[in-house]
Amino acid sequence: MRATATHFLKALNSHLGRHHSNSTAMKLLYPTSLKLDVQSIEGFPLTLHAYDVKTPIPDDLIDAEVLVTWANAASNLKDAAGRMKNLRWIQSLAAGPNDVLSAGFDASKITITTGSGLHDRTVAEHALGLLLNAARRFFEMRDYQLQGKWPGHLGGPQPDRPAGKFTTLRDARVLIWGFGNIAKTLTPSLVGLGSTIKGVARHPGVRNGIEVYSEDKLPELLPETDALVMILPGDPSTKHALNAERMRMLPKHAWVVNVGRGTSIDEDALVDALEAGTIGGAALDVFETEPLPESSRLWKAPNVIVSPHAAGGRPQGSEALIVENLRKLLAGQQLRNVI
Amino acid sequence: MRATATHFLKALNSHLGRHHSNSTAMKLLYPTSLKLDVQSIEGFPLTLHAYDVKTPIPDDLIDAEVLVTWANAASNLKDAAGRMKNLRWIQSLAAGPNDVLSAGFDASKITITTGSGLHDRTVAEHALGLLLNAARRFFEMRDYQLQGKWPGHLGGPQPDRPAGKFTTLRDARVLIWGFGNIAKTLTPSLVGLGSTIKGVARHPGVRNGIEVYSEDKLPELLPETDALVMILPGDPSTKHALNAERMRMLPKHAWVVNVGRGTSIDEDALVDALEAGTIGGAALDVFETEPLPESSRLWKAPNVIVSPHAAGGRPQGSEALIVENLRKLLAGQQLRNVI
Ligand SMILES: NC(=O)c1ccc[n+]([C@@H]2O[C@H](COP(=O)([O-])OP(=O)(O)OC[C@H]3O[C@@H](n4cnc5c(N)ncnc54)[C@H](OP(=O)(O)O)[C@@H]3O)[C@@H](O)[C@H]2O)c1
Ligand SMILES: NC(=O)c1ccc[n+]([C@@H]2O[C@H](COP(=O)([O-])OP(=O)(O)OC[C@H]3O[C@@H](n4cnc5c(N)ncnc54)[C@H](OP(=O)(O)O)[C@@H]3O)[C@@H](O)[C@H]2O)c1
Repeated sequence: MRATATHFLKALNSHLGRHHSNSTAMKLLYPTSLKLDVQSIEGFPLTLHAYDVKTPIPDDLIDAEVLVTWANAASNLKDAAGRMKNLRWIQSLAAGPNDVLSAGFDASKITITTGSGLHDRTVAEHALGLLLNAARRFFEMRDYQLQGKWPGHLGGPQPDRPAGKFTTLRDARVLIWGFGNIAKTLTPSLVGLGSTIKGVARHPGVRNGIEVYSEDKLPELLPETDALVMILPGDPSTKHALNAERMRMLPKHAWVVNVGRGTSIDEDALVDALEAGTIGGAALDVFETEPLPESSRLWKAPNVIVSPHAAGGRPQGSEALIVENLRKLLAGQQLRNVI
Repeated sequence: MRATATHFLKALNSHLGRHHSNSTAMKLLYPTSLKLDVQSIEGFPLTLHAYDVKTPIPDDLIDAEVLVTWANAASNLKDAAGRMKNLRWIQSLAAGPNDVLSAGFDASKITITTGSGLHDRTVAEHALGLLLNAARRFFEMRDYQLQGKWPGHLGGPQPDRPAGKFTTLRDARVLIWGFGNIAKTLTPSLVGLGSTIKGVARHPGVRNGIEVYSEDKLPELLPETDALVMILPGDPSTKHALNAERMRMLPKHAWVVNVGRGTSIDEDALVDALEAGTIGGAALDVFETEPLPESSRLWKAPNVIVSPHAAGGRPQGSEALIVENLRKLLAGQQLRNVI
């Protein structure tokens, strides 16, 4: 999957050579599916060309060396994989490379870099919103509102931070499983609201002031958790990371929030736990199958919040990433976010 | 309304004199309507007695000098106002003194202090939740979920911070009207998420790094606002502060959040604006009449979030306030939060 930078620096240099000897410049194709500040990526020895991500790449652009992708149609990518013979580098602006990988590009010739980091703030904000929705029970208030009924039990005088309930982020014990870029962005908001944060990742250690544990510590961590925030990538290593056995380790009042990938939760086991009342609830932005099928038991399970993969979807700072990677490409250095 | 501290220090001293000459100690009554750490308010020359806020004060406690109130029944307060002849100081744990004031206590003899400050974190957290609910449209997602439908238009790739829409707190212009304790607690969370904050209060100036304006600047401020957060007290000076004329100054996409008092918004004008689509939406925790009457047009108006006065209701740090005020009382100093 990894083509080295030198690999295509060679290609680039030969290309630049051709350029100096008055042939065509190297081409970078950028998508019109988002607003890019194209001027800010100028100044490199290549020409910039807009393209539509929903239709096949036009013939006059098919010899491009660099392709930036965002929200491309599967058919567009599949066509590009077959026809773009000079392609050396794909910069996806999505956090994960799934769509590019499944299009059939020749990974031995093409370096693929992702947009990891461009979604940190939007996904962190959404995760915070889901946590507050769960703690403050806005979803339940909505059900009452639709019936024109005042949910008196959710308002007025109430116990402060009652043990065995998740009603506030203050003093809540939040465990973030998948402690990467998004988690690091989310943490300060939670700390500011008074939560105690622990993390789980492949490599243990202290990150950004937060103690991060490896997965073998889950049996000690899960029972001490009021809210479990899952921000794991969707690769095979995370498949059903939260399974029935681990769900049983959570306290009865604990909420599960997932803004990573749906495959990291065993949804059948989750619905069983929700229906049995052995966990507090689940606020989900991602699902094993998206859109969530009509037949899914999640729609009607108690204490479930269904969000339609809405956390990210808005890369921020794409230009800076493209420019950094172009610069590194020309300098023969390793690009950022190579998969 | 203001009895001076010296006024009842005199009463207290004469009382302490009686105490030293072996008469009964001064009595403080604390409510059982919330969990207080009673031990932490011991050590003063007075005796502490629990009382039930829903029934009349028992005869043997009716001579108490100090009454701490929280979620008292109106009948309890009315009865106490008639029968507690030695009462010198009422410490309410509510943010506002409305219930105490309307019970008929003799304000010329009795100092009343509020629990302002005890609700900052809970109300700020709720306000943040309402803002995210509005921006991320969790309420609309809920409507789809209840029908078993995937709201695709709310997820997937989407424009980043589109002009003329309120979709994120990042780079959102938030105006906080009523820039007191709660606003100061809310501000760091919003700044952390990337919002630009301005304030409105009676006295202009910079507070906690935020520029606070007086109300005469509203015609310039409101048109530049994506989210207006109202945290005004419920006194006559704030009645219908947000009226039809001022609502017209808001951009079409602007949301109004109210966690102060319902009387500060002209609800009829608000529903008109919502139905006409001249403002973006309203997330309300407080209402002109509570519970919100069945007949209210707010239940069914578009883009309304009804929260049942659930922001506060959980005083935090009551013991520290009681102790500080007892200490100041004994030192002959002005108490905190005198109304
Ligand atoms: N809902 C949305 O709209 C949305 C938007 C953007 C992204 N996402 C998802 O969020 C995911 C995370 O994004 P990110 O930018 O934070 O990624 P990241 O910076 O790469 O962090 C991923 C974290 O997961 C940990 N991890 C990976 N595999 C693991 C495993 N098998 N067991 C335990 N921990 C594991 C990593 O551990 P180490 O640090 O120890 O390597 C790292 O801490 C993305 O992959 C994407 O699927 C969702
Ligand atoms: N929803 C709930 O559950 C809940 C819970 C607790 C409190 N509350 C409400 O929230 C209100 C505010 O609480 P707080 O602790 O932040 O109060 P605070 O510290 O007293 O602040 C009140 C702010 O409002 C401003 N203000 C007062 N009258 C005004 C007027 N006529 N025009 C413009 N500004 C005016 C004050 O201006 P200056 O600073 O210039 O004096 C001050 O900035 C409380 O009074 C209570 O009604 C609601």
